[in-house]
Amino acid sequence: MPIPRPTAERLSQLARLLDQHSHAAAISSSEIEHKTGWPSHTIRKDISFLELDADISTTAGYNPVALAKAIRKTLNLAETDSKCCIVGLGRLGSAFLEYSGFAGSPFSLCAGFDSNVNRVEILKADFPLYPSFKMKEIIPRFGIKFAILCVPPQQAQATADKLIECGITGIVNFTPSLLSVPSGIEVENVSIIDALGALAARLAAENAHKE
Amino acid sequence: MPIPRPTAERLSQLARLLDQHSHAAAISSSEIEHKTGWPSHTIRKDISFLELDADISTTAGYNPVALAKAIRKTLNLAETDSKCCIVGLGRLGSAFLEYSGFAGSPFSLCAGFDSNVNRVEILKADFPLYPSFKMKEIIPRFGIKFAILCVPPQQAQATADKLIECGITGIVNFTPSLLSVPSGIEVENVSIIDALGALAARLAAENAHKE
Repeated sequence: MPIPRPTAERLSQLARLLDQHSHAAAISSSEIEHKTGWPSHTIRKDISFLELDADISTTAGYNPVALAKAIRKTLNLAETDSKCCIVGLGRLGSAFLEYSGFAGSPFSLCAGFDSNVNRVEILKADFPLYPSFKMKEIIPRFGIKFAILCVPPQQAQATADKLIECGITGIVNFTPSLLSVPSGIEVENVSIIDALGALAARLAAENAHKE
Repeated sequence: MPIPRPTAERLSQLARLLDQHSHAAAISSSEIEHKTGWPSHTIRKDISFLELDADISTTAGYNPVALAKAIRKTLNLAETDSKCCIVGLGRLGSAFLEYSGFAGSPFSLCAGFDSNVNRVEILKADFPLYPSFKMKEIIPRFGIKFAILCVPPQQAQATADKLIECGITGIVNFTPSLLSVPSGIEVENVSIIDALGALAARLAAENAHKE
């Protein structure tokens, strides 16, 4: 059964939460509710999508290490080598050059691209940075599958088209432009304005519920 | 009827898409499908949550201006004055100081905070920046309701607690820490790793479907 997208997203977050509690013998769904704000019945429903070994769930709760492993296996996050690149090294893109969250995740950053050759030479990172015209050579050579898109909005679609030509199959889109992509390619839009909009909508729904 | 969260998020993105097509007389659900990748039946179902005037939908499609307005009214995004602050002005937080997406949105940035007084004095923004100890004074005075949290992960929970004390009701959490908040407060987690995880899960689901 395919996993619904909100479930996949919650489970992916839950795996990170469980990592922070790997020392605990067990974590209950009500503890998870307290830490995440998701109702415990939603959490149990999400977990029901996983194929669980018998020893994951006890009367005291879930085994955090085993549950995190089961989530990563089901969501195909178990491979430790999904290669990513950052495209567009302006203020936002270059801020991600030192993002520490990749450590311990199944994703690794292995290249950065910018059309400004100067910028590529000045910036420092733990992985190589290239001028954009090298994408065609570097992306297939490293087997990079994911791109984090931080270019100016007016260049977003053209850059996405080029990335897909080079073999990218998933794009995290930090630009405010919405992208058209062929089937088989996935885009995840990340936008402060949408995040604020989702917060405002949920707060409005809560208030309506109270009235 | 409360609007499901994924619907609210799609509608909020759709309103931005419609803004880009405000010159068009009409936009059809299949055009929206092409531009967003969402199935047209999902789009029609999402739109069915809105209270629509008779003139929004014609045989040629939706009136983009009227539909965007109806979305913003329903999602409570119509007010043009939801005030936000950025908390933590390191590389990521300071990158948002020049983010252009707030223009034309119902949200406005009106303050930034950092515990490092030097940083607050050196950085430039179109709105005032303050040392963190001023949050208690500035947040209530300006009526700021939303915070964009970009502090180091080990400071995330303590900073969130302080923001809520000051009157913040919604937090966009850019740190990898998950936050515990009291009921009535909403958190939206934004994480590159979760975005990549969602992409990987969707690509895996597609491939499983094909096999």
